Amino acid sequence: MAMDPDAVAKAFVEHYYRTFDTNRAALVSLYQDTSMLTFEGQKLQGPAAIAGKLGSLPFQHCEHQIITVDCQPSGPQGGMLVFVSGSIRTAPDEHPMKFSQAFHLMPAGNSFYVQNDMFRLNYG
Amino acid sequence: MAMDPDAVAKAFVEHYYRTFDTNRAALVSLYQDTSMLTFEGQKLQGPAAIAGKLGSLPFQHCEHQIITVDCQPSGPQGGMLVFVSGSIRTAPDEHPMKFSQAFHLMPAGNSFYVQNDMFRLNYG
Repeated sequence: MAMDPDAVAKAFVEHYYRTFDTNRAALVSLYQDTSMLTFEGQKLQGPAAIAGKLGSLPFQHCEHQIITVDCQPSGPQGGMLVFVSGSIRTAPDEHPMKFSQAFHLMPAGNSFYVQNDMFRLNYG
Repeated sequence: MAMDPDAVAKAFVEHYYRTFDTNRAALVSLYQDTSMLTFEGQKLQGPAAIAGKLGSLPFQHCEHQIITVDCQPSGPQGGMLVFVSGSIRTAPDEHPMKFSQAFHLMPAGNSFYVQNDMFRLNYG
């Protein structure tokens, strides 16, 4: 089945941030043993370490708003780079903070897992 | 030779933005036929199209300031993802604009070329 990369990227991004904002622990299923997350410069590898980091972030409430989504095929192995900019608010009355995030998705059966994930806040 | 990925990423980033700011046309040598650039949502492929786009940007003077550089190996083919945030000023008296950029470098002999390049301004 030929997939439209932009449609796949958009679907992934919607799924990722909806899951982050409503059931953060479930993000663990998107990562495999070789997966890497660099979160504000801190490096983590594997589903347990990555989900542990995301789960330990010091806020409960979280709302992502997506501003841009770009994607490109990463090479002959069927991977896809997804590059996101947006804003995040961790309390309803808080001023949103800008962020950018780059994902490298690799095929796994009929779906994808996150091989690479790099997140940065963009301080104004 | 074992390379320190963070040192390679830092050297690439310094070279890329110094070249952009002093001799933009020379960036063409960093791209190959399969290379892709998504610049503010516009997709280009190959050295000529990419260098043409960068050369046509409507400013002569340009100063990048780098704020963060993250990198991760992209997979078994020896590629490397480099994720940059920074600011850019296109006139000496101008307020700098934030940007973020993701590169996927692939090995080429003793060096790397840019397989993927995605650039976005992060409007405040």
